[in-house]
Formats: sequence, structure tokens, C-alpha cells
Amino acid sequence: MRTIFLNGSYLPETEGKVSVFDRGFLFSDSVYEVVSVLDRKLVDFDGHVRRLCRSLAELGIKDAPDATAWLAICRELVARNGVEEGMIYWQVTRGAPTDRDFAFPPEGTAPTVLAFTQSRPLTDNPLAVRGISVVTLPDLRWGRADIKTTQLLYASLMKNEAILRGADDAWMERGGYVTEGTAQNAHIITHDGVLITHPLNRDILHGITRAAVLPLAAQRIEERPFTVAEAEQAAEAFVSSASGFVMPVVRINGKVIGDGKPGSATVQLRKAYIDWARRTAI
Amino acid sequence: MRTIFLNGSYLPETEGKVSVFDRGFLFSDSVYEVVSVLDRKLVDFDGHVRRLCRSLAELGIKDAPDATAWLAICRELVARNGVEEGMIYWQVTRGAPTDRDFAFPPEGTAPTVLAFTQSRPLTDNPLAVRGISVVTLPDLRWGRADIKTTQLLYASLMKNEAILRGADDAWMERGGYVTEGTAQNAHIITHDGVLITHPLNRDILHGITRAAVLPLAAQRIEERPFTVAEAEQAAEAFVSSASGFVMPVVRINGKVIGDGKPGSATVQLRKAYIDWARRTAI
Repeated sequence: MRTIFLNGSYLPETEGKVSVFDRGFLFSDSVYEVVSVLDRKLVDFDGHVRRLCRSLAELGIKDAPDATAWLAICRELVARNGVEEGMIYWQVTRGAPTDRDFAFPPEGTAPTVLAFTQSRPLTDNPLAVRGISVVTLPDLRWGRADIKTTQLLYASLMKNEAILRGADDAWMERGGYVTEGTAQNAHIITHDGVLITHPLNRDILHGITRAAVLPLAAQRIEERPFTVAEAEQAAEAFVSSASGFVMPVVRINGKVIGDGKPGSATVQLRKAYIDWARRTAI
Repeated sequence: MRTIFLNGSYLPETEGKVSVFDRGFLFSDSVYEVVSVLDRKLVDFDGHVRRLCRSLAELGIKDAPDATAWLAICRELVARNGVEEGMIYWQVTRGAPTDRDFAFPPEGTAPTVLAFTQSRPLTDNPLAVRGISVVTLPDLRWGRADIKTTQLLYASLMKNEAILRGADDAWMERGGYVTEGTAQNAHIITHDGVLITHPLNRDILHGITRAAVLPLAAQRIEERPFTVAEAEQAAEAFVSSASGFVMPVVRINGKVIGDGKPGSATVQLRKAYIDWARRTAI
């Protein structure tokens, strides 16, 4: 039985409950982060705190824990749950007023603060050895994909649609251009050895792992949208995310990428990222 | 203290809690309805059940209460809370698995089913006498506004933005055309006496009140998108919603509509709708 953190208390996971009037439950008025754990330490902790603060500021949600408080919560959860490798999920909502109203609750309404761990092997991941397959599906998400909100219904629907179609996951496309995965940034490497990745705008999440991975790449980097056709014809393809690190993509819409095995540049980048993550984890 | 309904039980509202692993809380994997109560009876109950079933079918959420069960729940809540006039809120989520995963939970995971009442005067509403003011703001919602999900963050943000700008509410616009309000369908009446309303597609919610109101209008109806400029120059404007019925709009982006008082056709339509609602409520 996991111990989770909820509003200042450490509780058995089965006792983690929020009011039905919580803004996160009624309005998706809520943001989150996922931080990886390697060797019981937190990967890129500062980056995730910074992005959470940005998400909260965009929505005007106040009084969330600061970096020091998050660090204490994470360390306590890692210790209590004996997490060697895995993730810590954080969520902050605009809190639980006493009734439902589109208008924000009164100033001073405390945010709801949740954190829980998920133990699982991240470095030794069989998917990284075989590579994953993706299908492209229309990106129908809201216009602020750069804010990490819990409005994840569409991403979840597309993940499940991809599985139904026999793939591992989906890449979303808008106007013929790939935006990102359901919970990962998408990247390709051309036959000329150029790493192409969507620029940071409101169409994609500003990946913390993406930001750490790109400087580790040996390739020249072009930050521009790439088309579905470009992706299908790429030499290599991969996704980046907090829990997947650098994950090779070996099939896009049924088309085999490279020789159908993880590309060598991708494999190298995954290794470089994991080395960096281990070295800098706190 | 209200009594609410949650997963088969009638509870004091302060005891209404859901697991932090509920798909509604983590993924906004959840749909809702708001049904009005007049004279302790339910307005357009069949319409709301029908739309809820459609929303659930679009998302593939199963095992929600059927019409008979909803009717029993609503009547019990109205009786227990002595609701003369007001609303009943329904919400169904894909349920609470034991952990967080974008992939759907196993078949057979019970949905979370919530219902609560909100007592308030609906027919005798001072806003209907003075009319409301709206500002137009960009519609950045996801591409399936026709499914009534709890991904309401953007609508809530726009409602609050409108209030900050000194208006009562917002109308959202996409490519220069008004789609709808934050929780209401938007309509205008031209100086030629034509009622213009956005057609039913994926850009707007298919309003149950809209569907009941339009046949009661004396005007010729054109179902087509109208521009912000057309709205600002309209003879009359109004919104329709389950709890607001027909609500006059007297100011759009600061521009006065008609003589700044609720238009006569709108007032007549509000009366006709309330008469119909009372007559057909069950």
C-alpha cells in the first residue's frame, strides 16, 4: 500500500480523497507535473518546479507549495514508498469551494495539493530496446497545450485509439504538421543528420526532458514544425518525456523508420540523457 | 446541509469525496449535465438524459444510470433538499482505477456517478430584467465542444476574464464568428426579424434549451455562424441555457444592443419557454 501526500497529510492511497466540489474534479481547473526518480533521487527537479510555477501563474492559482516544500514532499514519499526508480506525480487544483460556480472561488481558498509515487523500471525499459510504433491522429486539444493542465481527455482518447489500431501510441497533427505525442514531445532525425523538433509555442508542452535532451544531441537542431510525410521518411524518430526519457520510434503510420530498430543516434541520445539525469539528480 | 448522491449513496455534501485516482480528477475523463427544477419538477428531463447518453457513448463510458435511475435520483434529491426551483448537476466519470494511466482502466471498472442540487430562483431572475453584457474572447477550447465534458477550464477562465473586464460573461469566437457563451448558446435577432443561431456541429454544445426554444420563436430561423460585427449590430441578442432559460444580452463588447433593454422578442421568447418548461416538467 502506497503512501500518498494530500493537502499536508501523508495517507494510505485508499484514503486519498477530494471533495466532489473540487475545481479539479468539476472544471479541470488544475495543473500537474511528473518527475522521475533514479537511484532514489529526483531528475531535473528544478525544471519541473519551474514549469509548475509557470502553469500555476498562467491560471492564477496561488499558494501552492514552493520548491523547498516540494522537495521535502518528494523525499518523504520516495523514502516511505522505497522508490528506487519511477515517477512522482504532482497535482495542484484551484481548491474545493462549497459549491459549483464557473466564477473563481473567493481569494484565500486553499489549493488542493496532491502527490503520489509510481515505482517502475525506467532505465531498463524493454520498449527502449524494441522501439515504439505510433500513428498520427488529429490534434483537437485546446489552444494552450503549453500549460500542463489535467484536461487530458483527448490525449487519453488518442492513446487508446492508437492501441486499438495496433500501435503503442499516437502523434498528434495539426494542419499536416506533427505537434507532439499524447504525453511526449516528438522529434525526428533526417537522413542528412538534422534533428527536427517542433518549436516552443502554444501548440506543444514545453518539455522539461526535451530541454535537457536537445543540448546533448550531436546533431544540428532545427526547431520547426515537421510534416507527417517528413516523419514517415525520417532516418530516425523518437519521443522525449519525464518517464520515457528518450524513447525510439520505429514505425509511424505503419511505415518502418530506418531499419525498424532504434536508430543509433537515438540510442546514443538516450544513453547520454540517462547519464546526465543520474549525474544531476538530487 | 445538502444531501448529494454519490455512487449509489445519499450523503451529506461534506462527505461527498472521490478517489484522487478518479479519471475525472486526473484526466477530465468525465461528462456532465445540468437539469433545471421548476415547481419541484424536472425540466426537459428526457433531453438531458439523451444528451448524457450521447456524451457517454462518444467517450465509451459504460454502465451509467439509465433514465429510470436518473429520474429516481433526481426526485429523491429534490425531495430531500426541498428544491422548489434550481438545478440538478449530474456527472459521470470513467471511474477510479487503482493507479494513474493514460490507457483506459479494465472493462468493468464502475463509473463514478455524482448528482447534487443547487436551489436558486430561476424564473424570477433580476438579470433577465436588466439583461446581461458580454465581451467576445477567442475560442481556444478543444475541437469537440459538442461533447459535454468537464474540460471546463477555458470556459471558466473566460467567464472570469469577462468579469474582470466589467462584463457579465463572455461569448467565444473562432475565426471572427461567434461560437457560443461560456455555458450558454448564443443567438441574435436581426433588424429584419431573423433569428440567427450557430448550426449544430462540433464547435458548440448542442443545447437542450436551444432545441426547445427555437421552435417557440415567432421569427424565421437561420442556422449559420454569425460574426462578432453582426452581433454588435443586432436588434436583439440572447443566450439560452438550462439554468438561465432565455437570457437577454443588452451589450456586446461595450456596444449597446437595441435600446439597451431586453428586446421584446427575447422577453416574449423567455416567457414562452418558461411556460413550456412548466407545462412539460415531470
